[in-house]
Amino acid sequence: MMIRVLNGNEKDIINFLKSRQQNENEEIRKKVWDVLKGVKSKGDKAVFDYCKIFDHSEINDKNIMLTNEEISEAYDKVDADFIRIINAAKTNIEEFHKNQIQKPWFMTRSDGSILGQKVMPLDSVGIYVPGGTASYPSSVLMNSIPANLAGVRRIAMATPCKSGIINPYTIVAANECGVHEIYKIGGVHAVAAFAYGTDSVPKVDKIVGPGNIYVATAKKEVFGNVDIDMIAGPSEILIIADENANSKFIAADMMSQAEHDVLASSILLTTSQKLIDEVIIELERQCELLDRKDIILKSLDDYGAAIKVQSIEKAVELSNKIAPEHLEIMVKNPIELLDSIKNAGSIFLGDYSPEPLGDYFAGPNHVLPTGGSAAFFSPLSVDAFIKKSSFIYYSKSGLEKVSDDIQSFAAYEGLSAHGNSIKVRF
Amino acid sequence: MMIRVLNGNEKDIINFLKSRQQNENEEIRKKVWDVLKGVKSKGDKAVFDYCKIFDHSEINDKNIMLTNEEISEAYDKVDADFIRIINAAKTNIEEFHKNQIQKPWFMTRSDGSILGQKVMPLDSVGIYVPGGTASYPSSVLMNSIPANLAGVRRIAMATPCKSGIINPYTIVAANECGVHEIYKIGGVHAVAAFAYGTDSVPKVDKIVGPGNIYVATAKKEVFGNVDIDMIAGPSEILIIADENANSKFIAADMMSQAEHDVLASSILLTTSQKLIDEVIIELERQCELLDRKDIILKSLDDYGAAIKVQSIEKAVELSNKIAPEHLEIMVKNPIELLDSIKNAGSIFLGDYSPEPLGDYFAGPNHVLPTGGSAAFFSPLSVDAFIKKSSFIYYSKSGLEKVSDDIQSFAAYEGLSAHGNSIKVRF
Repeated sequence: MMIRVLNGNEKDIINFLKSRQQNENEEIRKKVWDVLKGVKSKGDKAVFDYCKIFDHSEINDKNIMLTNEEISEAYDKVDADFIRIINAAKTNIEEFHKNQIQKPWFMTRSDGSILGQKVMPLDSVGIYVPGGTASYPSSVLMNSIPANLAGVRRIAMATPCKSGIINPYTIVAANECGVHEIYKIGGVHAVAAFAYGTDSVPKVDKIVGPGNIYVATAKKEVFGNVDIDMIAGPSEILIIADENANSKFIAADMMSQAEHDVLASSILLTTSQKLIDEVIIELERQCELLDRKDIILKSLDDYGAAIKVQSIEKAVELSNKIAPEHLEIMVKNPIELLDSIKNAGSIFLGDYSPEPLGDYFAGPNHVLPTGGSAAFFSPLSVDAFIKKSSFIYYSKSGLEKVSDDIQSFAAYEGLSAHGNSIKVRF
Repeated sequence: MMIRVLNGNEKDIINFLKSRQQNENEEIRKKVWDVLKGVKSKGDKAVFDYCKIFDHSEINDKNIMLTNEEISEAYDKVDADFIRIINAAKTNIEEFHKNQIQKPWFMTRSDGSILGQKVMPLDSVGIYVPGGTASYPSSVLMNSIPANLAGVRRIAMATPCKSGIINPYTIVAANECGVHEIYKIGGVHAVAAFAYGTDSVPKVDKIVGPGNIYVATAKKEVFGNVDIDMIAGPSEILIIADENANSKFIAADMMSQAEHDVLASSILLTTSQKLIDEVIIELERQCELLDRKDIILKSLDDYGAAIKVQSIEKAVELSNKIAPEHLEIMVKNPIELLDSIKNAGSIFLGDYSPEPLGDYFAGPNHVLPTGGSAAFFSPLSVDAFIKKSSFIYYSKSGLEKVSDDIQSFAAYEGLSAHGNSIKVRF
């Protein structure tokens, strides 16, 4: 038995989930600050030094950015089917995200006033892509496609070049999705270069993309100097199932989450004890066939749970408190629960909408709020790559009509120069 | 002569503006952490202790939240005209912000798949309102009205109770705008109470509102645990004017910005040396009539500038690099420049759209990105009080059609359990 069976006590479940949060600590902060300060004061030189120390790579101002030749070489290393598949995924992702494009608007008043809101793309964005086993081409698609749809002029990417090597799939995915610049740098020094700018790496307006606790801490530190996307923690899935649900599917989906990371969490909430028993058998059977069995077992053991609940309503209530990143709903009429879901990153309805469909292919973004932050953060979207400005045009008579009220309001706040700015006009 | 006249050298101007940024430092962080940790571990007790230390107020679990009687008493202390004026402003602010309400949407595919995006209000929000001279009723309006339009169930407000007293205008403004709970706490311990929750102050999903460097640092520290609005710094205005502009209006508007804070910045970019000379005379003349003359003079002296530029195009280019919080455009046909403005919080067009009109009355929000962050942050809006969830429903045939591609994609990423989750379904 490799998964805990909890009863439906809310507090226990939420505490159990919170226990996996990896918090930044003083030591991590200290290291991150040192690197940020180094890059802020010494620019390129610090970046190149850190590349040597952390990545064992000789990076300089000549080789830091991937050349067209290096991009071509990456194409030689991937097969044609990969390019076809990421373009099929890209088509779906674009089709979905196009719906998120916001329009400027204006309103008028009878006194001749016009007010409105402009919508503009960010000028530049830096996408961070981790190296090593966590280097996922799908992550490149999910970050760069909405930036491109927003109209960002300069999309830069940074990914560590470990001992001179970058994953060719990552490079090809970036090039297919219109990334303009690829830098061979990773870690905190990449975040610092994007945030402050160096001679070789111009500053960006916003940094997005996943990363380890050091990268996440660095992003939070530079927030304000640039914008950042949400603070991401370990991944999770929650499945709400009734007695009709298929135990084989549920076990497979829980393990697809668990294989990401030993800190990943997979939780089943169901009204059926029989289903729990069957899922446990399926987990044991299917995991034998999977490459990442060790990670899966450790993740399920530490943060997996099967929870019997009194009713589907109770499961929804508990799910809303947990605010899972991924929520699968496998009940008879899943669409009927859509309204009652208040907190979840992405919602997967029915037996044929497994989480990996959303990770790669269906169209919605797979960059989702984790650790309960779906209560206040949203999936990554075109919204993340735009900014807005409001505008006001008042006619003379329009201003005159409200001039006394504005002067009074200013007086209530004790700001006489505010009042004066209206007064001098009449 | 109390304002520097710079030439149009970009680097000089931008460095000059950056010099006023008040950065958090180690000492401030240390103090902030201590308070955050205190409230996180000791809850109410720590909050009450800090109220005694910082605000000289005896706060306990019985008196921390304003009672209906206390709210009624505040009404007795303000005049009827104040209530009329804030309701007139509220009507305009609501009318403008209603345009920001986003709708859920969905799309279908011919294989029976349905995908879409839900839009939901945050459940709870904490509005921070500074005490003392910086306690502005207009700030209560600008933060609470969009939260209310978004549909936030619980809008809480925290404001320091200095020696037992809260500004009655703030209380009345909050009550008129539908704030549900008013807490007599301020400073870092108020941010901590909102972020972690205590017995007396339940946790919120997001903290918004202005504050000093300690409050701003605390908000950044708790970001991730809750959402926060942008990181706000000192305020600024930039005015683009041609030779037709009115020097009296310009001087008045520069001073309405300068009176906020000695760190506020007021900049004029103009093609006309004659206008610069006239504005300087007007500044000297008008400031004599204003209550906050000392702050105005210090602000203009330190961070005011009049800059002669070669052309209006050059002024726009420079303005886009500065990304001002408030941008006034006083040229012959101001609306013609609207498209070319890429970075600005709020844009005020023409002679009769002075900044105080936007601060109080016109309708757009006065909570705006400062310090150049208009390049990536937007004005506070209904957007700040909602979250989104995506959803995916695929039919069996829909999934089957793409099942090979998803399994291949998973294989490229080395995630066999992802592939397995598709495979077990067919």
